[in-house]
Amino acid sequence: MRAVDIIRRKRDGGALDRGQIEFVVRGVTGGTLPDYQASALLMAILLRGMTPEETAWLTDAMVRSGVTVEYPDVDGIPVDKHSTGGVGDKTSLILAPLAVAAGAIVPMMSGRGLGHTGGTLDKLESIPGFRTALSLDDLRAAIATIGCALIGQTSDVAPADRKLYALRDVTGTVESIPLICASIMSKKIAEGIGGLVLDVKTGSGAFMKTLDDSRALARSLVGIGEASGVRSEALITRMDTPLGTHVGNASEVIECVEVLKGRGPEDTRELSIALAARMLIVSQVEADADGADRRIRGVLASGAGLEVLRTVIENQGGDPRVIDDYALLPSTPDEARIIARGSGYVELESEGVGRAAVALGAGRSTLDDVVDPGVGVEIVARTGTQVRAGDVVLLVRHRGGRGLDAARELLDHAITITDGPPPAPSLIVERVMHG
Amino acid sequence: MRAVDIIRRKRDGGALDRGQIEFVVRGVTGGTLPDYQASALLMAILLRGMTPEETAWLTDAMVRSGVTVEYPDVDGIPVDKHSTGGVGDKTSLILAPLAVAAGAIVPMMSGRGLGHTGGTLDKLESIPGFRTALSLDDLRAAIATIGCALIGQTSDVAPADRKLYALRDVTGTVESIPLICASIMSKKIAEGIGGLVLDVKTGSGAFMKTLDDSRALARSLVGIGEASGVRSEALITRMDTPLGTHVGNASEVIECVEVLKGRGPEDTRELSIALAARMLIVSQVEADADGADRRIRGVLASGAGLEVLRTVIENQGGDPRVIDDYALLPSTPDEARIIARGSGYVELESEGVGRAAVALGAGRSTLDDVVDPGVGVEIVARTGTQVRAGDVVLLVRHRGGRGLDAARELLDHAITITDGPPPAPSLIVERVMHG
Repeated sequence: MRAVDIIRRKRDGGALDRGQIEFVVRGVTGGTLPDYQASALLMAILLRGMTPEETAWLTDAMVRSGVTVEYPDVDGIPVDKHSTGGVGDKTSLILAPLAVAAGAIVPMMSGRGLGHTGGTLDKLESIPGFRTALSLDDLRAAIATIGCALIGQTSDVAPADRKLYALRDVTGTVESIPLICASIMSKKIAEGIGGLVLDVKTGSGAFMKTLDDSRALARSLVGIGEASGVRSEALITRMDTPLGTHVGNASEVIECVEVLKGRGPEDTRELSIALAARMLIVSQVEADADGADRRIRGVLASGAGLEVLRTVIENQGGDPRVIDDYALLPSTPDEARIIARGSGYVELESEGVGRAAVALGAGRSTLDDVVDPGVGVEIVARTGTQVRAGDVVLLVRHRGGRGLDAARELLDHAITITDGPPPAPSLIVERVMHG
Repeated sequence: MRAVDIIRRKRDGGALDRGQIEFVVRGVTGGTLPDYQASALLMAILLRGMTPEETAWLTDAMVRSGVTVEYPDVDGIPVDKHSTGGVGDKTSLILAPLAVAAGAIVPMMSGRGLGHTGGTLDKLESIPGFRTALSLDDLRAAIATIGCALIGQTSDVAPADRKLYALRDVTGTVESIPLICASIMSKKIAEGIGGLVLDVKTGSGAFMKTLDDSRALARSLVGIGEASGVRSEALITRMDTPLGTHVGNASEVIECVEVLKGRGPEDTRELSIALAARMLIVSQVEADADGADRRIRGVLASGAGLEVLRTVIENQGGDPRVIDDYALLPSTPDEARIIARGSGYVELESEGVGRAAVALGAGRSTLDDVVDPGVGVEIVARTGTQVRAGDVVLLVRHRGGRGLDAARELLDHAITITDGPPPAPSLIVERVMHG
């Protein structure tokens, strides 16, 4: 088998067979396929696409490029959630504790912020002492004892994905649905889960701007999961405006704790409950939707979810006192206001808010950037709020003016004041299941 | 400027600007652009194309990646010919001496055989002692004294092309018209020529199988030449059946010498005359087509062309006695016959004959293969010849049976015997000029 023949086949729009895909993934993992051949193939895949079958084979080969975690001491079906990325998208820190409190087993491997979207690991690391880099042994021990771990991808899991992702990042081959799906799903499947709930964002602040594209991505992800024996479903949810009231790492942790205390913004709470309830269904903790919803609302109301978060923080070296004393979390004294330039109803566009947060230091422009957990944007007047000219819409928490000018401009552009109230579509658009 | 942004722009079908193209070529030449980024860009170019303007900029940047040869002591416009490659395509050894005898200056840089097509350098090197690797000083001296040199590409000329070509070969990105055009034309322009005649082959044995594709290639090549101040035109010529009666390096040299002696097959002679005459026009040695044709036929009839070949061979260290004594050229005693399997008219397909010659050792399957100058195929019954079952159609000159089985099968498939005479279209289909 010659790599150049595989590249030419995909270049000409043909489908690769399983052996060819395995040859490529083995070559990438073992370093026998030169990067220049891998990148030519990635570009051909981006421009020519892959069939669902090819995508499933690619995912499977990437899973088998490393270890698949097993949990021999665990009784039950480990379950995870994955979001395609949004602004203020902080549900993991709420739904994982809720699902665990309700009986699920959640070995959650998350990523870092990418582009204008935030990442769960960055949020967790704003908690003093919290370690996201657990070994597989530590992960298994956490699952066996408390049923939950919130960690980063270990180097044992899907090493082919790590190599391909690094190459895609510098060769303009990130934006390919089959490559995105294989990357997401190979990591999730290798975690050893049996159930997966996908939060596929749609709208101006999402990777997929249109509902059609979001549906295609959701169907592809669900199809791959089911083909690998992972019971999978997706909720397509709106990402036109930020989720909740805070964007920025430490402040998002606070918002999550607030929700677990029975407070916090309604949209953050309801989306977290909905996703957690579906996690109970796909992991067969609950058989029907109403029962799952009731059970999640029960552990939220009882405070059992909050106690799971406390245990997880303790177990991973973090300071659990942050739950009761937010002053222990990083912050900044520097604050600026963004005011309404007219009177009417606020419409706040999420991508601009996400980019502003990155400019302030809450995310990374390059992989080497250091995240500042204390900076961010607080949303005082959310989409749909009626304001008068001069009212405060956003509070910008910056550090010594770093990125403030860029953030101001982005945020000014992200705010529209309309005469009538903007449409308020339902946050959850639809559910995508297999078949 | 970031390479990834350039790649993404081309990936999305956009046109690159001159600065972006120069950035890429400088990076390739200087080794600062990683191969994996270059190959992703090459694949995007292959699948998305390039505008004529982009192609001209790419060519120009590749020319300027190395030296441009100048001929300060020469009075006149140096001229060259380039063929897109065929089987039995041996016109260079005839037309260069004819054009020089008629007053042209011909610094000809040629290539080696590629795929099923032969290369001028391999043919020349079948002449004992002939050196094709001249330095630029030797080239300039040859042009100043005898007005002709037949050499290979030196490492000073268009180094970006050499690097990109090596990468294209292993990344499935050879078959792109803009990349092919930039590769061909950058080398030719850097030779320091002011005129160029292109022999663009069309048909089953050509790189371009259809007339439309051949026209597009011809127009692109001519356009780039003219944009660089090189007066360029193309003849589109048929390559459905081999040119002349011999395929194989030493035997093709003999066929050329025969033509220069006023003998040899008509098609080889007439195509060589037509191309040489157009070389006189584009180099302004002659102003009108009839005058150029007459002048070339004159130096053929007088033997002046043959004497130029003799001088060139002597000047480049070869044994000029081969012109009078073909036994001084490499040969092989081993011969096999391919006979007609039925009675009727022969139709001989060129790609199969070219592949058979490669199998016998007349060409290379990989760059490391060593060419055997003595082997090849002699065409006894050409396309259109009436034969009876059992008549010899081809003589296969092999060495000890090397590649003979493969060649036999390819040749059997290359021969069709038809009831009526096959169509005999004109060898020269049309001329493509600028504008």
